[in-house]
Amino acid sequence: MAKRYKITMAYDGTNFAGFQIQPKQRTVQGVLEKAVNKMSKLDDYITIYGSGRTDAGVHALAQVAHFDFPHAISAQGMLKGLNSLLPLDCEITACEIVSDEFHSRFTTHGKRYMYRVSLDHFTNPFKRFYTGHYKYPLDIERIKEALPDVEGTHDFTSFVASGSTVKSNVRTIYEATVTEDKKNNEIIFEFYGNGFLYNQVRIMVATLLEIGNGRRAVHDFLRLYEVKDRNQARETAPASGLYLKKVYYNEKK
Amino acid sequence: MAKRYKITMAYDGTNFAGFQIQPKQRTVQGVLEKAVNKMSKLDDYITIYGSGRTDAGVHALAQVAHFDFPHAISAQGMLKGLNSLLPLDCEITACEIVSDEFHSRFTTHGKRYMYRVSLDHFTNPFKRFYTGHYKYPLDIERIKEALPDVEGTHDFTSFVASGSTVKSNVRTIYEATVTEDKKNNEIIFEFYGNGFLYNQVRIMVATLLEIGNGRRAVHDFLRLYEVKDRNQARETAPASGLYLKKVYYNEKK
Repeated sequence: MAKRYKITMAYDGTNFAGFQIQPKQRTVQGVLEKAVNKMSKLDDYITIYGSGRTDAGVHALAQVAHFDFPHAISAQGMLKGLNSLLPLDCEITACEIVSDEFHSRFTTHGKRYMYRVSLDHFTNPFKRFYTGHYKYPLDIERIKEALPDVEGTHDFTSFVASGSTVKSNVRTIYEATVTEDKKNNEIIFEFYGNGFLYNQVRIMVATLLEIGNGRRAVHDFLRLYEVKDRNQARETAPASGLYLKKVYYNEKK
Repeated sequence: MAKRYKITMAYDGTNFAGFQIQPKQRTVQGVLEKAVNKMSKLDDYITIYGSGRTDAGVHALAQVAHFDFPHAISAQGMLKGLNSLLPLDCEITACEIVSDEFHSRFTTHGKRYMYRVSLDHFTNPFKRFYTGHYKYPLDIERIKEALPDVEGTHDFTSFVASGSTVKSNVRTIYEATVTEDKKNNEIIFEFYGNGFLYNQVRIMVATLLEIGNGRRAVHDFLRLYEVKDRNQARETAPASGLYLKKVYYNEKK
């Protein structure tokens, strides 16, 4: 009798062509399925279901996925077994056996993303794969003033990349914050919402940085919600700064 | 009339086969000389002189080098020109025109190295190229008690890797410290001395971690100075945790 395993994992997205499996590409789902199927040793192929995709170069501190496994292995045994088979840029950090009603994607209540922006005046060799970069003047107080406009339920059509196939662009953001990491000369955004559109976080970050720089009005988000025009938000912050920080199920926060 | 340029640079050592130029290998000196010679457009090959080598995988926050350049270019113009030609994992952070008496290697008064040790219980995908890793129990108070033994003038024969060709293994360490970075679950060593032997910092760190773990006596450094036997220090901490942090010339600290 197969049991369902929920796994939580961290990965460095730098050398992955995103989460979702693709022919001839190195993907997170690909290396996970290879490891799980190596452990099962069965002809029946086991598929991994992730909470959602991440793009090429996007990182995860706690991505969640599930799969059904035919043999009786403890959660701890599964965690150790998978980690012994996985490459070093993808690490299972938690594993539990869950009921068949759990689904990593359909039963999620929300997600939290983090975005790191380096303010270095030069291209820091240690940050090129791990932050976005903004080298223009930035008034963080303007960004703080704009962030309450991001929170709440809005039509985010101006913030969705072309290629998205969802029916509605309405989403709710419960929390949008920015903090300064003076030691590392960075600012860190966090967004906690019930779901995010394709490239939404990266487009919102680029827009917030333009607000901080003064080339947009502080409350430009309110206008962008109205116009519903992707061309007016323009920029997309690079994948390297984006981290999927948490996927929420029953528990809050 | 050629002028001498002193450059300070940061590099991510992960994808370099060390500093020193080698045939068919990607080295820091190699990419620097390629950039400088592309700028000079002369038949005479310009050689870069570094303050010292760093091994494959070892990083630099502020390595120093010099070279003589035949054309009149301002220090700022040289910095911008080189950075436009260098790969993103090597960045010039400062440049100045110096007298012909300056020599990056022979006129240095000392160096400062930093070593980052991750204490994570799992292999953190974001740290695999940027820290060493110690997953065993560690009493940092024992390390703090041992560090004064590291400071001072000693014969470091027990801490020099085979392959070293220097005449004397006596060096002076002015400062040896450890700090806790609780946010990142790391401890950070720093060593400031008048010079370091081949692999000396990595061997000292491995020894200090064994002291912290309790498998060596707190004052084992005093015994190791006496026995002058590399086999008794045994381990070498991985290159990934090591950073050349500063090279000292006339100025102190």
